[in-house]
Amino acid sequence: MRIGELSRRTGVPVPTIKYYVREGLLPPGELTSPNQAAYDEGHERRLRLIRALLDVGGMKVAQIADVLAAIDDPARPPHKVLGAAADQLGSADTDPGDTESAAAQAVVADLVSRRGWHTHESNPAAADLSRALAALTRLGHGAYTEVLDDYADAAERVARADLAYVDRRAGVEDRVESVVIGTVLGEAVFSALRRLAHVDASAKLYGTDGPPERGTG
Amino acid sequence: MRIGELSRRTGVPVPTIKYYVREGLLPPGELTSPNQAAYDEGHERRLRLIRALLDVGGMKVAQIADVLAAIDDPARPPHKVLGAAADQLGSADTDPGDTESAAAQAVVADLVSRRGWHTHESNPAAADLSRALAALTRLGHGAYTEVLDDYADAAERVARADLAYVDRRAGVEDRVESVVIGTVLGEAVFSALRRLAHVDASAKLYGTDGPPERGTG
Repeated sequence: MRIGELSRRTGVPVPTIKYYVREGLLPPGELTSPNQAAYDEGHERRLRLIRALLDVGGMKVAQIADVLAAIDDPARPPHKVLGAAADQLGSADTDPGDTESAAAQAVVADLVSRRGWHTHESNPAAADLSRALAALTRLGHGAYTEVLDDYADAAERVARADLAYVDRRAGVEDRVESVVIGTVLGEAVFSALRRLAHVDASAKLYGTDGPPERGTG
Repeated sequence: MRIGELSRRTGVPVPTIKYYVREGLLPPGELTSPNQAAYDEGHERRLRLIRALLDVGGMKVAQIADVLAAIDDPARPPHKVLGAAADQLGSADTDPGDTESAAAQAVVADLVSRRGWHTHESNPAAADLSRALAALTRLGHGAYTEVLDDYADAAERVARADLAYVDRRAGVEDRVESVVIGTVLGEAVFSALRRLAHVDASAKLYGTDGPPERGTG
């Protein structure tokens, strides 16, 4: 199909498609004349993936380029692609090296050991978790660690469901893409569900009028 | 304390503190002379909150301004502040009105009804969830709805733990801030835990060498 048809099918403007090709996110179409290129369903699918990672996943173009390179690398085993996608979701702030950071790292190490979680040292999720816990402590919410095991139970349940879903996918190639999609879009799905469940939990705890004033309710 | 001491205590550079004051995120210090202002522990605490929402929560300055205005508004009941914070986490994309969107909205309505969740129509989380599910369908992952109830179970568990934590906080004023912190930083905590749990679930399902090639493993 021509670029105009690709644009119509996906809702992505032609100049934007050309930009993705220039940035290496989308392979160029096959030249059918000096001024015309043909695109196929592979391009359409890739374009939808790019838009989903951008719009729903909130990723940046450069991060998407890294993840797509991992998907396209035939030498890269599928489980490494999961790592590449997950790494892009994390942040790369340096450890401030203060008391709160050190304490939070110890809490995370203890949690991982208590849950018997297999993990690897390069997984930035552990550093991200420490960083969030340290920020909570600095805000006077060090007691938030009380909910960590509830959160970990929930995370295990979600991760098992994700892996079972990916395992049901037929081909390895498709499965690699499934892992990326599940990691990024699954995060958006859970975030929305948590916010819906908050409203429900609040209504059940306080009634629909919201929490009572302390001492009067 | 002077602005230099506030900067030293929080690690936020003086020009950045002045920028937050100009943008209305941080109240100005009390003028002690024409060129000097005094800041107190309230400023320090607010500054830490701003940095946590920015650095860990990934929020933008304008979004933080909206959430802080909700916290500071004495006429606003606490449970509305939760809504204000949650709204900032969501996105405001328009509904493309295509088949996938309509189908996803029906799936969400069915889920909310099946779970018996109290919700309100203005909650953008339902629209965000529909949007993520529609994106999954467009990518050929419509079957991802199979995991929705596992996700919903996990979200309920997390939401109950969050609300119980907030309910244990003593004062109403503090509780309002707790809700904002829990909504935003709790999301970062869960995201990191899910990524840790993925690695563990993958190791348990496939061994630490990653998934086998289909047909050979």
